[in-house]
Amino acid sequence: MRALVVGGAGFIGSHLCDALLEAGDKVVCVDNFFIGVKDNIKHLLGRTGFEFIEADASRLEVLSDAFKGFEPDYVYHLAANSDIQSSAADPLIEFKNTYATTFNVLECMRRHGVKRLFFSSTSAVYGEKEGSVGEHTPDLAPISYYGGAKLGSEAMISAYAYMNDFHALIFRFPNVIGPRLTHGAVYDFIKRLRADPSRLKILGDGRQTKPYLHVYDLVDAIMRFRDAPQGVTLYNVGVDTATSVTRIAEIVTEKMGLGGIPFEYTGGRGGWKGDVPVFQYDLSKIHAAGWRATMTSDEAVEKTVEQTLDEEEGKACRR
Amino acid sequence: MRALVVGGAGFIGSHLCDALLEAGDKVVCVDNFFIGVKDNIKHLLGRTGFEFIEADASRLEVLSDAFKGFEPDYVYHLAANSDIQSSAADPLIEFKNTYATTFNVLECMRRHGVKRLFFSSTSAVYGEKEGSVGEHTPDLAPISYYGGAKLGSEAMISAYAYMNDFHALIFRFPNVIGPRLTHGAVYDFIKRLRADPSRLKILGDGRQTKPYLHVYDLVDAIMRFRDAPQGVTLYNVGVDTATSVTRIAEIVTEKMGLGGIPFEYTGGRGGWKGDVPVFQYDLSKIHAAGWRATMTSDEAVEKTVEQTLDEEEGKACRR
Repeated sequence: MRALVVGGAGFIGSHLCDALLEAGDKVVCVDNFFIGVKDNIKHLLGRTGFEFIEADASRLEVLSDAFKGFEPDYVYHLAANSDIQSSAADPLIEFKNTYATTFNVLECMRRHGVKRLFFSSTSAVYGEKEGSVGEHTPDLAPISYYGGAKLGSEAMISAYAYMNDFHALIFRFPNVIGPRLTHGAVYDFIKRLRADPSRLKILGDGRQTKPYLHVYDLVDAIMRFRDAPQGVTLYNVGVDTATSVTRIAEIVTEKMGLGGIPFEYTGGRGGWKGDVPVFQYDLSKIHAAGWRATMTSDEAVEKTVEQTLDEEEGKACRR
Repeated sequence: MRALVVGGAGFIGSHLCDALLEAGDKVVCVDNFFIGVKDNIKHLLGRTGFEFIEADASRLEVLSDAFKGFEPDYVYHLAANSDIQSSAADPLIEFKNTYATTFNVLECMRRHGVKRLFFSSTSAVYGEKEGSVGEHTPDLAPISYYGGAKLGSEAMISAYAYMNDFHALIFRFPNVIGPRLTHGAVYDFIKRLRADPSRLKILGDGRQTKPYLHVYDLVDAIMRFRDAPQGVTLYNVGVDTATSVTRIAEIVTEKMGLGGIPFEYTGGRGGWKGDVPVFQYDLSKIHAAGWRATMTSDEAVEKTVEQTLDEEEGKACRR
């Protein structure tokens, strides 16, 4: 297969590039380095079957050139802002980097006759819901610009898939962690502790509890389900366990040899406006389809902390 | 109230301008004449309390200037492509005129501290569903770029409303008809019959059946519910009767004195790809809130045909 990975130098995108090459695909990775970094793909540069194009997918003609040169038969679209906090101050980031990139991917697929799409959606499309949320939960009501742009992307995928006979696979990601992470609690805590190992500031009351999925498990699921039938196939992807922010802080401090230092909570329910404090996925659909994460949420956090500390020390990641 | 009507020279927008002025509001009407026409508002030009600005709401800074000059306290956003067939050939029309206009309205509201929004959504957000669709129907799956862009707009309104304490009223419109109509079966049939009164070409098999709401009833509902509480208030708006395309053809030919001419069907279920052939709304929410259309779907079609023929002859519309 000829795979175009949009946002391929990002955290998840780069792991997907690894897996696609492993599976024997030819891969063209497109990234504008807005969030993605060259470091994530430096091990792939020069490798047979891999090509990198620095391009901004929010510009239609620029993305179209990448299609023209490569003629992909599968597009993996992982480009997005992905940092909810930054766009809270400037929602235009979501318009451009999350919504417009999706529209452009779809329009390029239409123009170039590409039929297969993977799209990285998010739990943020649901908004604040009581109890667990499944693919058929009604009244989706995102409370962040990021969630709004992703739900809008799903809506446009539905239209394009119908009008152009696309085979579209959409995963609604939970919090995903692992090596090459660029934001989120695990990343922030390690950074804060490097700056000041005597205490740890925690946004909110620490009780925000979310399922954390390791990126290895996520990429495994993408590869498993990528041959989707015509139309739109949608899955919640995640783990059926969850980890509180305080538990993450405990794991990070323990692994860094800082167990017992004081945690300083800023208070309140959520870490920031648009954050969803308690969250649980209904995963029965993907479980019924034969897939389960190999790591629990706590195990994913533990492994990620170890891998991040390894990366910092320049060691190869423990798999 | 100081009301900014985006898309105010359009079919529905211009009727809303009439009603807002009637209610004593100061009205600034913004339109780029992409679908709207000056004719729709010529009776308002020069009237006290009414101002027209020719501006393209898909350009953020242009729209922002309109906000700056007027400082509205209510925005009615009716700008959209609205012609599903035209965007089937060029989906960029929906990106720009339907989605980007909504994003820009929201962003201007955020920047200028405006809290009240009315948004014209559509039955096209549902896609093809069995049975009747209500506000809580899950798995919304638009099959047109227009429906995709409108559902995406709703998603972004959800996020902005939460983040900025907006009071947002969203109506999902069915087919709306009445004087100043610019497209759709009633309009097309009259135009075709003016060109050739000996026969009538009908897209599809004529059995596509949809509820038609008269614009007077719609505008009445907007005025009735416009003081929405904080958050998003969503209603299906329509009539609980419906009219087939063949019945429309019968009404049009009868009113034009052409009863009995042959109808030539192009065949197939829908008129075009992205058209939803059979459709029925669950209206229990808006009925429970005390509103009902005064005209049935057939009555709305009959009245619209009469009014359109009056317009053509330069007569004042029969109310």
